[in-house]
Formats: sequence, C-alpha cells, structure tokens
Amino acid sequence: LPLRLRVRFAETDQMGVAHHSAYIVWLEAARIEWLRERGLDYRTLEEAGVSLAVSAVSVQYGRSSRFDDELTVVAIMTELRSRRVRFRYEVMRDGVRIATAESLHTPVDKGGRSIRLPAMWLEALHAHLVTP
Amino acid sequence: LPLRLRVRFAETDQMGVAHHSAYIVWLEAARIEWLRERGLDYRTLEEAGVSLAVSAVSVQYGRSSRFDDELTVVAIMTELRSRRVRFRYEVMRDGVRIATAESLHTPVDKGGRSIRLPAMWLEALHAHLVTP
Amino acid sequence: LPLRLRVRFAETDQMGVAHHSAYIVWLEAARIEWLRERGLDYRTLEEAGVSLAVSAVSVQYGRSSRFDDELTVVAIMTELRSRRVRFRYEVMRDGVRIATAESLHTPVDKGGRSIRLPAMWLEALHAHLVTP
Amino acid sequence: LPLRLRVRFAETDQMGVAHHSAYIVWLEAARIEWLRERGLDYRTLEEAGVSLAVSAVSVQYGRSSRFDDELTVVAIMTELRSRRVRFRYEVMRDGVRIATAESLHTPVDKGGRSIRLPAMWLEALHAHLVTP
Repeated sequence: LPLRLRVRFAETDQMGVAHHSAYIVWLEAARIEWLRERGLDYRTLEEAGVSLAVSAVSVQYGRSSRFDDELTVVAIMTELRSRRVRFRYEVMRDGVRIATAESLHTPVDKGGRSIRLPAMWLEALHAHLVTP
Repeated sequence: LPLRLRVRFAETDQMGVAHHSAYIVWLEAARIEWLRERGLDYRTLEEAGVSLAVSAVSVQYGRSSRFDDELTVVAIMTELRSRRVRFRYEVMRDGVRIATAESLHTPVDKGGRSIRLPAMWLEALHAHLVTP
Repeated sequence: LPLRLRVRFAETDQMGVAHHSAYIVWLEAARIEWLRERGLDYRTLEEAGVSLAVSAVSVQYGRSSRFDDELTVVAIMTELRSRRVRFRYEVMRDGVRIATAESLHTPVDKGGRSIRLPAMWLEALHAHLVTP
Repeated sequence: LPLRLRVRFAETDQMGVAHHSAYIVWLEAARIEWLRERGLDYRTLEEAGVSLAVSAVSVQYGRSSRFDDELTVVAIMTELRSRRVRFRYEVMRDGVRIATAESLHTPVDKGGRSIRLPAMWLEALHAHLVTP
C-alpha cells in the first residue's frame, strides 16, 4: 500500500498551501514505506552502515494541496544498479494526481563514500523493478 | 551579493549531513535575496496579492554539507515571461560548487490562479535576465 | 484514538534521534486529531476566520526517539475559557512515555487579534474538558 | 553579537506568521552562535562525542513575526553544572521583545548517556554564567 498522509498545519505556508519543500519529505517517507512493504527495512540498512544518499531530486507541482488534505504518495522503482537506484512518485488526492517526482540515489557508507548496494538488497529489490 | 548561510543543526539528519530537503528552503531564501538586491521586495509582491508559485524544482547534489558549514547560494534568472520565471542556483562552499538546482515559477493570485506578472516587475526583472 | 505517527527520516538530526523541534509539530497534529475525534474540524474553524494561536508551549524530553519509531501522542484539554485553551500531551512509544508537553492557545481572528472562541465551539469542547 | 536572522518563507504557515516550531530552531542557532562568540565551537564538541541534548524547552509567544522580518535572538546562560546547562532567550524585532524562551540541556555521549561536561568547557563557560 502506498503512503497515506495528512498535510500538517506546520507544512503550510502563507500562501495557504503545503510548502513545496514538504513534498520532498513525503517522497522520502513514501520510499521508506515502499521498501517496508517489500520486506526491506531501511532502518536495518542504515544500522548496517549503508544509506541510499539522494543524489538528485525533481518535483513537478500541478495542483496545490492544503492543510488537512489526505494525500497518497505512490512510488515505483524505475532503475536498479549496484551503484544507482531511481524512484518515481505520484502524489494523489482523491484519485487525482497533483504532483509527480523523481529521485536518484547512490548507496554510500557511513563516511559518505559510494559503495555497491549489498547483494541481498540488490536481489530483493530486483523483483520490484518497473522499467518504463 | 548572494545569500550566505550556515547549516543549522536542525537541518542535519542521522547521516550527519544537511538533509536534502533543506536545500529547497535555501534556494527559496536565495531567490528572495536575489530579488531584494535588485530592488524588488517579495513581501511587497505577496502583499499586492501576487506570488511566484513554484511549479517545478530540481536539485543535483554533489558533495554533502555538514552542520555549521558556511554556504553561499548563487542565483541567476534564466527565463522571464509574463507567466513563467526560471532560476538556476549553485550552492557553494569555500568556492567549490556542492550542488546545482533549478526552479520554475508561475505568477499566481491569492486564489492560486495563474496570472501575468505585473508589468512593473516584468520590466524591473528584464535587466537581470541571463540567457544561457 | 490518539495520533499515531512514525518518526520521519527528515525529522532526525546528526545525534541520530528525532530533533526536539519535531515534537512541536507532532503536538499540533495530535491536537488537530483530538478535535477531529470530537467532531470539530480545525480546517472549518480556520476557514471561518478563527485560529487557535499558540501563546506558549513547553516540552520535557525524557527518552529520545529514533527514525521509524512508531509513536502515539495522547492529548487532553485541561483548560477551556473563551479566550484561553490549554492542552497537555504525552508522547508514548510501546506504552512508555518518552515526553510530556503543554500548549496554551488564544483564539484569534485573521488579523491576529484576540477574540472569544465561537459559542458553538466552546459548548462542543466543554464536554471534553479534563480538570486536573 | 546575538544571532540575527530573517524569517524564511518556508517558516510561515497559513495564518501568515512564522510557525511556532520555527522559534525552536532559532533558539538552537542562537545558542550555537552564543557559544561561538565565546570561543566555543559546538561542532568541535560534537566531534569529540559530546552533545548538549535538549531535556526541556519552553517558549512564550507574545507578538507574532512575519515573513522577511529581521529578528535578533539574545541568549544568556543562566545555570551551569557539570550535568545541566540552562539558557534563556529573548526574540527581538526592532528592539521590541516578541517572545521569550528557556532551554535545559544535559551533556550526553554518542550513545545518549548522560555524562559530565568536559572540564575545559565547564571552565570556559563559567565566566559567562548570568545568575538571575
């Protein structure tokens, strides 16, 4: 199941809508839920000294969202290499897409150095790759 | 002068670096300083009922930044139309570029409807357009 | 039901725990859920031009919380006057209280001026007052 | 010199003022500047494995602040023990106090265990204690 969330009051800005930086935080939460749904616990990965550092992110904002809106963030993994992982996202409200996004990730160790994704994760993720 | 800032402790995450969403907030602050330097006060624009809504944003993260790092965010305006404004950014530390970014904006009224940028702003901005 | 949430990665800091400012955002979300559970929609109140401005907040942090922890935030309303509302909170993890907090609110209009809470809200809230 | 800052657009909420959680982040930044002014680098302390964990924080909000307001956050240290440090703050705008706050800190090691503040820090801080 994709991440469901409510727009928090603290996430709004003086334009009366969710601030565009909040979406970046939601994408991350959606990615972590996506992994959990597939039996992969991001906390365990981090504790093993591996992080999926964000090397690029982009968001296209269509309609705005407002305080207390219930949103769903659908994630798919569109690229999987030992040193590069890519996700795409759709932020939905009442079945209507209000934003799309993409993030690119580099597995890194605790020192921030690029490493290969552990084989176990690579294999586990492979079944969930969606090639466009 | 471009925006100078220090990475706040609250902006770090458990990887020990500035969280990638913090950059989005810095870009916005840099854009507002860029306008101010050119005699354009974004608060005044907002009070007149015009906002530069963010319709897209993208960031490429090179090197990470850490708590207390002093960063500079250089902005340039690369596209200027009555219904579309584009900025590009470089986040610098000690003269080294650590991230690049771009944002696309749509002038909107208080109801969030797309409008034309007020002529006064369009003219004032025109002198500062940098075509790539 | 009290608010349940997961600590977001973006809410952690370089100490490896949820940053203390994140709790303030959770308290607000818990307060809004508390109202919703009692048939009071804070969005409707805001749209009617009434806000419960925060005039004071305090948090005592006991144990820290970590990325991906599942937390529950229990709220109770401990004071209710036409110009003052007080809430107390307990942040719980696995049945253990990890933080306590309090917030004090002043009903204000759109201009930020102190007003009396609408009678309908005052009456609806009265049944839920817990005097210590 | 106390911390000077501008209210960021991202820090506003739909009430049109700086969200109350933003103040918590500003207090932290003010505390870190206060230390720096006295020759104490918080980054160095953290790198040595010592953090000043926040064990309590409270804020009284007087007047609100708005986007682009220039604020000053004055900090003083009002208690200094090897296992407890307390700060008080005043958030000022144009010479007028708009909020007051207090934070209580416990020195902890990387595992989050309470430790004694290193003697060097204790001595260096002692000269700056302001007993009420």
